[in-house]
Amino acid sequence: MTTTLIRNVRPLHHDAADILIRDGVIAEIAIDIAAPEGATIIEGDGSLLFQGLIDGHTHMDKALIGLPWHSTKPTTTITEVIANERQLRREEHIDAHIQSTRHAHAAIASGTTHIRSFADIDTEWGLNGVRGLMQTRDEIKDKLHIQVVAFPQSGMLIRPGTVELLDQALSEGADVIGGLDPSAIDRDPKGHLDTIFALAEKHDVDIDIHLHEPGELGAFSFDLIIERTRVLGWKGRVTISHAFALGGVDHIRLGSLIEDLLDQEIAIMSHGPSGGRPAPPVEHLYNAGVRLISGNDGIQDSWGPLNRPEMLNRAYLVCYRNGFRRDDQIESVIDIITNKSAEVMGIEDYGFAVGNAADLAMIREENHCAAVVRRPMPWLVMKRGVITARDGVVV
Amino acid sequence: MTTTLIRNVRPLHHDAADILIRDGVIAEIAIDIAAPEGATIIEGDGSLLFQGLIDGHTHMDKALIGLPWHSTKPTTTITEVIANERQLRREEHIDAHIQSTRHAHAAIASGTTHIRSFADIDTEWGLNGVRGLMQTRDEIKDKLHIQVVAFPQSGMLIRPGTVELLDQALSEGADVIGGLDPSAIDRDPKGHLDTIFALAEKHDVDIDIHLHEPGELGAFSFDLIIERTRVLGWKGRVTISHAFALGGVDHIRLGSLIEDLLDQEIAIMSHGPSGGRPAPPVEHLYNAGVRLISGNDGIQDSWGPLNRPEMLNRAYLVCYRNGFRRDDQIESVIDIITNKSAEVMGIEDYGFAVGNAADLAMIREENHCAAVVRRPMPWLVMKRGVITARDGVVV
Repeated sequence: MTTTLIRNVRPLHHDAADILIRDGVIAEIAIDIAAPEGATIIEGDGSLLFQGLIDGHTHMDKALIGLPWHSTKPTTTITEVIANERQLRREEHIDAHIQSTRHAHAAIASGTTHIRSFADIDTEWGLNGVRGLMQTRDEIKDKLHIQVVAFPQSGMLIRPGTVELLDQALSEGADVIGGLDPSAIDRDPKGHLDTIFALAEKHDVDIDIHLHEPGELGAFSFDLIIERTRVLGWKGRVTISHAFALGGVDHIRLGSLIEDLLDQEIAIMSHGPSGGRPAPPVEHLYNAGVRLISGNDGIQDSWGPLNRPEMLNRAYLVCYRNGFRRDDQIESVIDIITNKSAEVMGIEDYGFAVGNAADLAMIREENHCAAVVRRPMPWLVMKRGVITARDGVVV
Repeated sequence: MTTTLIRNVRPLHHDAADILIRDGVIAEIAIDIAAPEGATIIEGDGSLLFQGLIDGHTHMDKALIGLPWHSTKPTTTITEVIANERQLRREEHIDAHIQSTRHAHAAIASGTTHIRSFADIDTEWGLNGVRGLMQTRDEIKDKLHIQVVAFPQSGMLIRPGTVELLDQALSEGADVIGGLDPSAIDRDPKGHLDTIFALAEKHDVDIDIHLHEPGELGAFSFDLIIERTRVLGWKGRVTISHAFALGGVDHIRLGSLIEDLLDQEIAIMSHGPSGGRPAPPVEHLYNAGVRLISGNDGIQDSWGPLNRPEMLNRAYLVCYRNGFRRDDQIESVIDIITNKSAEVMGIEDYGFAVGNAADLAMIREENHCAAVVRRPMPWLVMKRGVITARDGVVV
């Protein structure tokens, strides 16, 4: 049995305390815990304690981290962006295992302990991306929990053979099935969603659908997703990512969609998107009790260079994009990138309480809101009680 | 005569070069310059060279830098925010000289060499803010150039006595006259603008007007400002800050406003505002040739904690808010926070060319776009050839 005692740290909404960890699990949270014999002692010196940060939406298979600067090509349509991406993969021989490992290290170093990552599957790239990512997932599981989403980035029904590849990926161990703009990309909302839900049922996996469709078109896709979730009994197992439509409908329609989301426990992923387009009103959704998850999206890939692997930078952007200024608003974003995302990902042993995994990050700052504003790297990161990074470097 | 030779640095859009500085002025830019006798040598080792960064819109008199975390109060109207701010100043005895000095140090450390800062003037706070800021301006002028704007933050015509205070501030040496929402705050657009322009004429100073007014209301204020600029001959001497209206009118009205802005050389300040509200389309304005300036706005003050003193963080936010992904887009923002802002502020000896002041920041990164994305602190900052900061610390 390994025992670690962390002395004097400041968890969010909790008095300064000591934390006793036994075999990777939080065994006690109290003031002045006596050190058990043989315990490793870590002096927190009044550091902030964050729960392990969760990147609940990213694309580790195609991050260009560690490669030379990639200049984003000029494009006018999303189809062109996706075509450029396939071309880059072909020409540069991007290795999903190597790239996702690099991404994983950058994530761990910045305090992330759990990731939901999409992996592109198409008829050209095949299962290279998802297999490379699953290899990383399995190799690095003691330092970082990765949930792999089989994702038809280039479209599904418009590219015959893709459904079979998704099916195969799920058979080989992908954790979640992903969908993509049923109307705008796949041109067949009923066909797309029926197929995604059928794959989910066949493999008994959760669903996470990229839905960029704006306004009433996106809201129609919401309706179709809600209907299938209800009828097929997939309550609590569906996430709608980006969900721009929630920022582009009037408040009556929004209110009715929120009722449905609550009823079917459908989660919304928002990361405070770039550009000026309408986006989900995070405060409104949070206060209504809608399940929420956030993430960094693609890091330094062919889509653009702005996203970073650090979840505190993401929390800052979510605050900035939503005009959050008050402590309770900033703290709601911390809640989203920790507890709320864990709930959506179904991580059962997550949370700052006795009996849960000791997934933690320690940061020297005035308070948790200041950490989001100033975004320092944690000086210590721990996964199941084992130190995984110190001062921004993976150990 | 002091002479400094910087070896092997990489300026934007320029081959790696050496830079010879004599008495604070760039004397030569070339490959392999022979070191003159007695010259101080600085090895750039292939660092990026940035021109001194410009924060063209901030509020140094009320930054709470160096004070304990301030929790932003819940408010529903902007009048309430402004009232809270006056109350905070009263109760906490905020010293504008001390706070602006702290702000100045944070700016210098992060590579800023020029600032345009507003200073609140109202009938309660009087000239305390502007005098404190002018004291800082005069004390720190060898390290940082500060342009002081006399600014009626609490309204002008709605608070009798304010005009006289603004007049007095300009007599005492404030550099620019500021205005604020002629309709939305001051309730008298004609009266407000006539007064601001009269003060500008009396003291022969430039004008910088905070214009948060949205849509057609803001566009009407644009019209009134443009008319006065033309008739009174203030061409090239007026800035409209925030200018949300440019994001809230149709493209025909936008096009016609742009024509007027070009004709009267009126500048637009945009900093990629927080929240989801419509904002000026920076790429469109930049490509049209409209004069542009940017800045950090209030840093850690009673309005909110998210803004930071580092201009590279601001460049990142401007890119994020405008959906910029390509190198040329990111580089346009670097141009805005350097050359374009210098032009608006009327800094005559600015720019990376022989004969201009050696105001420089050196950063270790792959390229200038990567520096905006990753935002490291410069390892060396120089004002007129004298080192002012090393590794994020003012010397």
